[in-house]
Amino acid sequence: MSRAGQQTFVYDRPPVIAAHASVAGPKEAQGPLAPWFDALLEDDLLGQKSWELAEMEMVRRCVMDALNQARMPAESVQALLGGDLNNQIIASSFAARALGMPFLGQYGACSTFVQALAVASALISGGFLDSAACVASSHFCTAERQFRFPLELGTQRPPQASWTATACGCALLKGEGEGLRITSGTLGRVIDLNITDANHMGAAMAPAVFDTLAAHFSDMGRRAEDYDLIATGDLGWIGRDLLLELCDAAGVSLPPDRLIDCGASLFYREQDAHAGGSGCGCVASVSCGWLMKRLERGELNRLLLVGSGAMLSPTSSQQGQSVPGIACAVSIERGR
Amino acid sequence: MSRAGQQTFVYDRPPVIAAHASVAGPKEAQGPLAPWFDALLEDDLLGQKSWELAEMEMVRRCVMDALNQARMPAESVQALLGGDLNNQIIASSFAARALGMPFLGQYGACSTFVQALAVASALISGGFLDSAACVASSHFCTAERQFRFPLELGTQRPPQASWTATACGCALLKGEGEGLRITSGTLGRVIDLNITDANHMGAAMAPAVFDTLAAHFSDMGRRAEDYDLIATGDLGWIGRDLLLELCDAAGVSLPPDRLIDCGASLFYREQDAHAGGSGCGCVASVSCGWLMKRLERGELNRLLLVGSGAMLSPTSSQQGQSVPGIACAVSIERGR
Repeated sequence: MSRAGQQTFVYDRPPVIAAHASVAGPKEAQGPLAPWFDALLEDDLLGQKSWELAEMEMVRRCVMDALNQARMPAESVQALLGGDLNNQIIASSFAARALGMPFLGQYGACSTFVQALAVASALISGGFLDSAACVASSHFCTAERQFRFPLELGTQRPPQASWTATACGCALLKGEGEGLRITSGTLGRVIDLNITDANHMGAAMAPAVFDTLAAHFSDMGRRAEDYDLIATGDLGWIGRDLLLELCDAAGVSLPPDRLIDCGASLFYREQDAHAGGSGCGCVASVSCGWLMKRLERGELNRLLLVGSGAMLSPTSSQQGQSVPGIACAVSIERGR
Repeated sequence: MSRAGQQTFVYDRPPVIAAHASVAGPKEAQGPLAPWFDALLEDDLLGQKSWELAEMEMVRRCVMDALNQARMPAESVQALLGGDLNNQIIASSFAARALGMPFLGQYGACSTFVQALAVASALISGGFLDSAACVASSHFCTAERQFRFPLELGTQRPPQASWTATACGCALLKGEGEGLRITSGTLGRVIDLNITDANHMGAAMAPAVFDTLAAHFSDMGRRAEDYDLIATGDLGWIGRDLLLELCDAAGVSLPPDRLIDCGASLFYREQDAHAGGSGCGCVASVSCGWLMKRLERGELNRLLLVGSGAMLSPTSSQQGQSVPGIACAVSIERGR
């Protein structure tokens, strides 16, 4: 069986996470997860001439770190699946140019990393690939000037705004070997409850996370209590509360002590990140840097990682469109 | 066997193309392929208030046309895989919102449609999906104002520039049934021969098409003569000639009479489209509207469809980066 219900892939031959690497920027290095990240940046330009070039270099370094951990040369990896928030996902595609791997560009906004894991796991489980690197990144400075305002303006941010993480995560999947395994993946529908405030991404995405969670539980015949932890990324503090409200209203059990949000975990409240962290790199770095290590240490046995994305563009917002959300989930398990 | 060589998926249970639909805009409706398209637009606004909304509506209509042909309701299709040139692929994701299908956003610039076919075919062949809709679109007016200049300026276009097609194509794939079958898919690497003229996309993409073609032939133990037709999309007239030169220089046989380019087929030379058609919708509409019908009529038995994309953004060009290309191929066969 390779499928359950309408939206869930079940990986008969679950791929192993052979290595995982994370990079976090200077502000993220001041947050509570700093000790967990594999690399901390002192300079968010990484010695490059532009923030976009810096993000490309961050992606390249992060993938190389995962490859080095697994002692695999880049040319032995059969595909790179990834994306980012830059227009035309240039951070990922230019990193793919530097790495020389076959590339499958993925885009699900901040759910991109989890989408890449779900698709790559299917390609490996189905025997189409022996190995794949999944990567996603974001950079505060590239995202601000592209989606919002030039940083030089010093524009005030509303309290419901999230803070795009300067971060990257890469998981290297293989068909054979020892390690954590990705056992299932649930695709998401594009859900829109007519949030028109493009800063209020937690509210825009919480309904999509609820929809995918409910589909996952229904498809797999599971409930929240079957997981040691459900990690969303990135609803932030506001969106996390909204998700709990949605579950409560629908009678879907979601014990708050089993739910964390990557965006709400990345920064201290006093770091002025408002609603919390966001960006494709947030869930990627927090899961690769923190959650996968907690699984490997035996602190968790079964994790449900739910990436959520706001599928907006500056153009869609300027034209008065509401902000649709999407969420994609994978279950990651220890031992087997 | 689900894989051949380093870059090629072999579909043990090759998915069937249950239906395919195409939409073409007003200029495309004046071209040589007009009689083949399923729908011709008289108005490239489709009654919407903006070109972006028009492109979303074009995608929705095209997918609905394919669904209607196959007599499948939208809710029975397990995934929509697609993308477009708009920042954050809003044409596809907003269409996915309207259609309610689980969505996997794909991005490979103008190779997006073929990438979606390659990935969806693997997910179906591997038993993860029973059905999937693959879609890609482009719109001249959304692309011009996003990538180049506001149309109102009437900026002159250089002769090597291609013309972004206002067009959309959708192929509905199923695991079971009668029809054309997708038998293999070859992923592409990001190739960059340092073309810095962002208008010269044929030159930027031809090396990537060559790289993927060579990988496909090597992985599958095939040569060009094993195909009735090799269709690239979209190199245009200049890029097509460059591909022939690259093959000649490398000693890879590619008989010119077996090679067509979707972008070089969409317009008459006198239509002032310069190097030919381009855009995600070009290869999608030409393959769904023309090539798949020629296969069904028995005029062709085995087609290799090679989508090529230029992975640039206005930001990457403004920062002096060269234009990397990528190409993805699928073989489509009649009968079996």
